[in-house]
Amino acid sequence: MRTSIATVSISGTLTEKLVAIAAAGFDGVEIFENDLLVCPHSPEEIRARAADLGLGIDLYQPFRDFEAVPAPVLAANLERAGRKFRVMERLGVDLLLVCSNVSPAAIGDDALAAEQLRRLAERAAEHGIRIAYEALAWGRHVNEYLHAWRIVRMADHPNLGTCLDSFHILSRGSDPIGIEAIPGEKIFFLQLADAPLLAMDVLQWSRHYRCFPGQGTLNVTGLVQHVLNAGYTGPLSLEVFNDHFRQADTARTARDGMRSLIALEQTLHGAAHPAVPTGFAFAELADAGSLSGVLDALGFTRTGSHTSKPVELWTQGEARMLLNATGADPALVAIGLDSPDPARAVEHAETLLAPVLPRERAPQDASLDAIAAPDGTALFFCDTAWLGDFGAAEPAGPVPGQITHIDHVALTQPWHHFDEAALFYGSVLGLHPQESLELPDPYGLLRSRAMSTAPASGAGGTSATAGTTEAAEQVRMVLNIAQVGAGGTPWQHVALASDDLLAVARRLRAEHPELLLPIPDNYYDDLEDRHDVDPELRRLGVLYDRDEHGEFLHMYTVTVGRVFFEIVQRVGGYRGYGAVNAPIRLAVQHAGRLKMGQ
Amino acid sequence: MRTSIATVSISGTLTEKLVAIAAAGFDGVEIFENDLLVCPHSPEEIRARAADLGLGIDLYQPFRDFEAVPAPVLAANLERAGRKFRVMERLGVDLLLVCSNVSPAAIGDDALAAEQLRRLAERAAEHGIRIAYEALAWGRHVNEYLHAWRIVRMADHPNLGTCLDSFHILSRGSDPIGIEAIPGEKIFFLQLADAPLLAMDVLQWSRHYRCFPGQGTLNVTGLVQHVLNAGYTGPLSLEVFNDHFRQADTARTARDGMRSLIALEQTLHGAAHPAVPTGFAFAELADAGSLSGVLDALGFTRTGSHTSKPVELWTQGEARMLLNATGADPALVAIGLDSPDPARAVEHAETLLAPVLPRERAPQDASLDAIAAPDGTALFFCDTAWLGDFGAAEPAGPVPGQITHIDHVALTQPWHHFDEAALFYGSVLGLHPQESLELPDPYGLLRSRAMSTAPASGAGGTSATAGTTEAAEQVRMVLNIAQVGAGGTPWQHVALASDDLLAVARRLRAEHPELLLPIPDNYYDDLEDRHDVDPELRRLGVLYDRDEHGEFLHMYTVTVGRVFFEIVQRVGGYRGYGAVNAPIRLAVQHAGRLKMGQ
Repeated sequence: MRTSIATVSISGTLTEKLVAIAAAGFDGVEIFENDLLVCPHSPEEIRARAADLGLGIDLYQPFRDFEAVPAPVLAANLERAGRKFRVMERLGVDLLLVCSNVSPAAIGDDALAAEQLRRLAERAAEHGIRIAYEALAWGRHVNEYLHAWRIVRMADHPNLGTCLDSFHILSRGSDPIGIEAIPGEKIFFLQLADAPLLAMDVLQWSRHYRCFPGQGTLNVTGLVQHVLNAGYTGPLSLEVFNDHFRQADTARTARDGMRSLIALEQTLHGAAHPAVPTGFAFAELADAGSLSGVLDALGFTRTGSHTSKPVELWTQGEARMLLNATGADPALVAIGLDSPDPARAVEHAETLLAPVLPRERAPQDASLDAIAAPDGTALFFCDTAWLGDFGAAEPAGPVPGQITHIDHVALTQPWHHFDEAALFYGSVLGLHPQESLELPDPYGLLRSRAMSTAPASGAGGTSATAGTTEAAEQVRMVLNIAQVGAGGTPWQHVALASDDLLAVARRLRAEHPELLLPIPDNYYDDLEDRHDVDPELRRLGVLYDRDEHGEFLHMYTVTVGRVFFEIVQRVGGYRGYGAVNAPIRLAVQHAGRLKMGQ
Repeated sequence: MRTSIATVSISGTLTEKLVAIAAAGFDGVEIFENDLLVCPHSPEEIRARAADLGLGIDLYQPFRDFEAVPAPVLAANLERAGRKFRVMERLGVDLLLVCSNVSPAAIGDDALAAEQLRRLAERAAEHGIRIAYEALAWGRHVNEYLHAWRIVRMADHPNLGTCLDSFHILSRGSDPIGIEAIPGEKIFFLQLADAPLLAMDVLQWSRHYRCFPGQGTLNVTGLVQHVLNAGYTGPLSLEVFNDHFRQADTARTARDGMRSLIALEQTLHGAAHPAVPTGFAFAELADAGSLSGVLDALGFTRTGSHTSKPVELWTQGEARMLLNATGADPALVAIGLDSPDPARAVEHAETLLAPVLPRERAPQDASLDAIAAPDGTALFFCDTAWLGDFGAAEPAGPVPGQITHIDHVALTQPWHHFDEAALFYGSVLGLHPQESLELPDPYGLLRSRAMSTAPASGAGGTSATAGTTEAAEQVRMVLNIAQVGAGGTPWQHVALASDDLLAVARRLRAEHPELLLPIPDNYYDDLEDRHDVDPELRRLGVLYDRDEHGEFLHMYTVTVGRVFFEIVQRVGGYRGYGAVNAPIRLAVQHAGRLKMGQ
């Protein structure tokens, strides 16, 4: 389908926006009037620039407060429209968006609105221009899409149709199935935006928090399906107002928007996601030597060395770590994902504009395909061939009472790339959003969102089938946003699963107490008030949570460089990540950092 | 009155918070439970630390979801309360905040709530503890302060009283006059928070956007007056949940909170503000030589040199500029304010914790008292003696057709000090908040708030008396927030008033066209559609706005260093600042900067 985007959705000057939109692969743009007004170039120059870039100008917007007005106001409004038509002719655009009147002076009379819109359409027709009438969610009298369509049908003019906007429809809780009542040729335009679920005034919500489809919680894909069922053949056009996007890199946001439309089309086609990982193959840590001791203490064994690179393989059960002796400060640099078809997974990622990483490898090395995640971490799609490069055999299975596998990996995203990351992992890896949380930290509020291969049960919900899925087969990622201001630190961590965390904790407490994050007694005073828990948790420094499905035991190591480790045990079908305890961890980590004078 | 603050209001670890709170001069604290839970120190250690710092612990909070529950839940809740009483004994605090139940399981039965709260009060009494019951604005059944008081009265136990919170009361639009129905001794505690007017879910509003009294738009002072009329003698305690404060500097936020309480008490005492400036004495620009040409072009004349410093005085009408040859990049470094009593103004600023600047001056120089504004700009309180240092006489009055005086000064605040700045100018200079706006910039959303000596007519309103006040006697400051991310630039500007802007513009356009910010033709195409304006505005590059009181003509110079100049003419009683045209200015400024490769 044709793809388009409103210029208001991204940052920059109008010409910067056009360049970025063309580079991201869009077919067209909606020109947002204010972007033109502040622009030093004439409409003719903008028209020529867009044409040079291969971009069509699909829509000019918005034209406000036109219909359902007293007669003298109508005359002035038609005058005003006439002048816009002339600007549109200079721009070479033949479709004008008219938003439903929000003025307190508007009259609640559908017949009057229809009659006046018909007059507008007649004038437009003289210029070869068409009018797309849209119900704003906060329109004075017309704020439902079916109401706008009723008025368009009453007006009955070939140059008048309706514009549908997923935000205006879904934010009000309207059922989009009614779209199928509208003949496709009367849907002149389709604007798409998603949004996080927020309990706030819809106007503020719209102006500050819209995001690209797949970044929020609205069912935009379902709405598009209804629009296509109605017979619509026009563009899918993004129209987003978002405080973060207004400040973000122009080209990156445009590419992100394009990714959202490509992913939406892939979902519409309904094919199974071709690249869902089936497990963690490995986590790769860059290092200058300090991590091998930590891995050894955690019970890992060095089981191989790369044949041509300074990389060691450490294993324990099905948890595998690569230590890459780059000499850098300890950091998580790559994640290996078990992939049923690595080549196809990379190809699929490329269709979603994911950057494919160039690889230096010796001729004898296994082919490993990798892409860059939004935070720069490399993601490798692996079959088991890579183990050959380490002279390692297929690993033995997990040993009870030890660490068995990687439960999840937590990465920190720059704050203005948080929505991008959710869309990236959703579309490129087929992960589903799980809980999204705000966590108080001593120096700010942290935002966190988990994503996993377990399907989500609706907005912000948890998996409906996790109980039946083998937990070890899930790939879980936790995306944390680094807060702005003092104390914002890009910590990363690898959470290792055990089927007997207390056994692991007893051993660590006895042999390597210096590695464990100390947990305040006050936490246990409160925990023991709230739950009937084993007093050994306090002695071992183990944290506890429960949900309606089961229990969660977890503990943390101290941070080495940017990285720390968590050890977790899911008892029963617990689906969370112990978020209730995150403020404790964050406070202790900050205290430790202050002590070390960092 | 005794002053207190909840530890959740500021950033840092619990011990960092206590130190900052004591340093800011508070008498006590409310311990927010989560701050204790994440703290490595025992309750006894925190008690000792607070005592060492001279801080009382006035309240422990919150205790949730206690009352109006089925009998088995009551037993568990009393157990839970008993454990909290023990923590409180260890902390040495005798007052517990109980918030109204928000659980869907709560029963809407006042008699039951009262009976159960009485049981709680009886238990508390055994420990010498008192219970302050508060209506949360989003409580399940009890969400109005008078409803909470009704239940407290029914319960009728000496250890049970109510806690009033200005946010919970005013955010719901409840009339605080009813507070006078509560006997003062039954008001066990008073929590204060302000908030900006936001149309959003009250829970989200409360958790993210509360601010200190004087920073928002709620009438906190009026509420406190009612509480005092009721006979309350306890502390004024700040309780704020704010995303910005969570990230801001601990000591600075604590000082800011203390300033808000001092200002509130001063307002309560009802004395006239002792330091309201009556005009701009001067604006001082640091310079390396490039600004004298600009001032000359604008029609200023060098009328004096400082007797002992490399500072020149340039004047035009009653507009006075000081050029300080520091050799630095051009920047606005100080503002001189005409003050009826400079010494008293500085003394008053000191009571509000404003930093007084040390001054180096020669023995023969006039005494000039200065304080630092939140963004570091120096504010001088002046009588006319300072002109003597420049060998300058009292200036002649303004000349028609030229620049007559300084209309306003616009400063850029770091984003997390925006609320602080509003409180600072309000309390220290007695300025009133005027319009508060969000302005789209090509690279972000800018927030702007004007403050002036004209009284505001209610929340966010404009002056009711500006039409009768001589405009030239107003002191107006515009506080702009610098956006986070690319393109955020701390521009400052001085707006110069003229009574014949077109005459000034014609002269500048003829003699110094290179100094004027070019305005896009598209702006005038749209402006001429909207208003019947003189076509000369387009030729001269003059911007236009109107409000219900009058018209506004304005134009901008290019930016030199961090500074640019605006020339404005207020026709009739226009009260704004041309904010509707700010996006045009910002886009052109960004384009110019890109061209210069900066």
